[in-house]
Amino acid sequence: MILTDLTLAEADRSGLRLTADAAIVLDGDRIAWAGPRAELAQDGETRSLGGRLVTPGLIDCHTHLVFGGDRAQEFDMRLNGAGYEEIARAGGGILSTVRATRGASDDELLAAALTRADHLIREGVTTLEIKSGYGLDVGTELRMLRAARAVGRERQVRVVTTWLAAHALPPEYKDDRAAYLDEVVIAGMDAAHAEGLIDAVDGFCEGIAFSVDEMARVFDHAAGLGLPVKLHAEQLSDLGGTAMAARHGAISADHLEWLGQDGIDAMAAAGTVAVMLPGAFYTLRETKLPPIADLRAAGVPMALATDCNPGTSPLTSLLLTMNMGATLFRMTPAECLAGVTAHAATALGLADRGRIAPGMLADLAVWDCAHPAELSYRIGFNPLHARILGGDLD
Amino acid sequence: MILTDLTLAEADRSGLRLTADAAIVLDGDRIAWAGPRAELAQDGETRSLGGRLVTPGLIDCHTHLVFGGDRAQEFDMRLNGAGYEEIARAGGGILSTVRATRGASDDELLAAALTRADHLIREGVTTLEIKSGYGLDVGTELRMLRAARAVGRERQVRVVTTWLAAHALPPEYKDDRAAYLDEVVIAGMDAAHAEGLIDAVDGFCEGIAFSVDEMARVFDHAAGLGLPVKLHAEQLSDLGGTAMAARHGAISADHLEWLGQDGIDAMAAAGTVAVMLPGAFYTLRETKLPPIADLRAAGVPMALATDCNPGTSPLTSLLLTMNMGATLFRMTPAECLAGVTAHAATALGLADRGRIAPGMLADLAVWDCAHPAELSYRIGFNPLHARILGGDLD
Ligand SMILES: [Zn+2]
Ligand SMILES: [Zn+2]
Repeated sequence: MILTDLTLAEADRSGLRLTADAAIVLDGDRIAWAGPRAELAQDGETRSLGGRLVTPGLIDCHTHLVFGGDRAQEFDMRLNGAGYEEIARAGGGILSTVRATRGASDDELLAAALTRADHLIREGVTTLEIKSGYGLDVGTELRMLRAARAVGRERQVRVVTTWLAAHALPPEYKDDRAAYLDEVVIAGMDAAHAEGLIDAVDGFCEGIAFSVDEMARVFDHAAGLGLPVKLHAEQLSDLGGTAMAARHGAISADHLEWLGQDGIDAMAAAGTVAVMLPGAFYTLRETKLPPIADLRAAGVPMALATDCNPGTSPLTSLLLTMNMGATLFRMTPAECLAGVTAHAATALGLADRGRIAPGMLADLAVWDCAHPAELSYRIGFNPLHARILGGDLD
Repeated sequence: MILTDLTLAEADRSGLRLTADAAIVLDGDRIAWAGPRAELAQDGETRSLGGRLVTPGLIDCHTHLVFGGDRAQEFDMRLNGAGYEEIARAGGGILSTVRATRGASDDELLAAALTRADHLIREGVTTLEIKSGYGLDVGTELRMLRAARAVGRERQVRVVTTWLAAHALPPEYKDDRAAYLDEVVIAGMDAAHAEGLIDAVDGFCEGIAFSVDEMARVFDHAAGLGLPVKLHAEQLSDLGGTAMAARHGAISADHLEWLGQDGIDAMAAAGTVAVMLPGAFYTLRETKLPPIADLRAAGVPMALATDCNPGTSPLTSLLLTMNMGATLFRMTPAECLAGVTAHAATALGLADRGRIAPGMLADLAVWDCAHPAELSYRIGFNPLHARILGGDLD
């Protein structure tokens, strides 16, 4: 199949590449060739895309898509003046999501996740990362990742899973952090890995969660299993988690509002991708901006993701995330496009997608747009015309 | 037709009213009765809504939906470091939209507006206000309002039109403001009114646009035609436009970031609705918040609208606007619901919609939600199950 009458748009650290009047040759689930139509050397069945814009399929590289319940009531209470104490007494906060997730059946977890996945897919998402982290016991963490894998079977989307048992300390371990790491984070990692449920290992490194030393222990264990690592780091304070993660060869460090130059240098040296999560910044009404200009200057690739989660980013639009990256973080539209394609793939350690080039997976998004800047410029608008996954048009 | 198995949700200044296990009796395009099913005294054909939530159809009471071109290139330039001068030299700013609007054919104006209207309709919008204001000559201003009326004929949505020739001063009048008011704003108002194109008269009262005295002249003329007035006021500075508008009995004053207590008192006395436009606040990265708590304390009804426009709010999601109202402006979810239903209707001077009560238009939105707070809590998510316009299910 040869796609013609299209404008190709790709972006990475070298900037935006636009090819007008281009063609893409598909071979099974892969791209065989892409370039100016005038240079096309092959014959075959062609399909016109009516002059539309074609980008790589979008990649949401950081989500907590599987969870039970929602936090709308807590949102309502807070806006009606309730403080932290009152919300905690009413059973709010992350532990309310842990309770709801533990209490949800497998079918309920999957059904809720599918509704959210459908919103992302409708906007051209072809690869979706999903973390565990609301079970905080081995059984529920595994059930979350099985639900994540099931999303990939039930829908036309590629799912990448992440073990995030080191997300919060559950009440039953509040007096024994080391036992939680041993019995849940590490023992569960072994069990989930044996079941083929883990593509990478993550943690939340923050005063309210896990320390740099605790996360280093988790990462050492992941390394023993050959699993790549990444980290929620420097979101609310500068603990040095990013530099530690980079020393462990992390594929990404995520959030990074409080990241300093040491951490940036460590990321540049290690090739760690900076994953920007403006949805959480927006929801928490943060004012400390991540060091975008310094990351740019250091040549650290920047990705953008929804961080879809019920507490701090109940966001299911990767296009809106692009707009927030531009509006709130002053990323350029080309950086926003790279952030949900090429750099998002790198953030997941995947070299087979996020670009339109021979040998890459034929995952594409076709847009009713003249220029890719429109994808970041518009707010709450979806110009997707069609999605192509593994060579198949939706 | 009797709708059953639903939860009714309505909101206004007295708060949120939820009625579980409710019924709604439709009679033609009107609501004949609504209340607890146990109190239903009528027989007739029933239709179960499967336990879903029903609110009034949403009302977007402030949009600039009809315009030519877009401003994605300017957005891109600005994020790549271009300053005001450079963008102006490249033909950017509001006058670029004026040029594109003047240059667009009637069909082009309508087609572009329909694409945007479709996004709003998909989220449960049943009434949509559309302003002129990018023609700045009589012919183009009239063409804009004809396109706005055509949106209401081409789609299942009720359109309310607003004369906003006093939006900006076009270059050809830059040395004669009074002539612009006479020859375009006022003469055009007469012509458009004669053609039945105007439901209300608006203006942009700001240092960069029109003065309080200039707008008072426009409002006096509108009063002579029996047309209600409203004003873009106190967005970037406190000029006192809101108080003047309230003295003219304005149905709404919109933006209001810089509004002081005098203006609030004048609005309360006149019954003027405060229309909050968080999309523009977000896009312009403003830090001065509108005086929500003071408006609330004074009993001024607050509406929420997209302000959909190509420069400062390229936003086509009223649900996201609700989330922004809550997240950025700290409005409660009940206030956000009232803001896009009952208070939005009042902001348009319409007493026949925005509530679910006997005699009201049967314009309803049916949601896959358990509680209306979910409509404000989620970001970039659309739980609309169905829309009912004048008694007809989509
Ligand atoms: Zn996260
Ligand atoms: Zn406006």
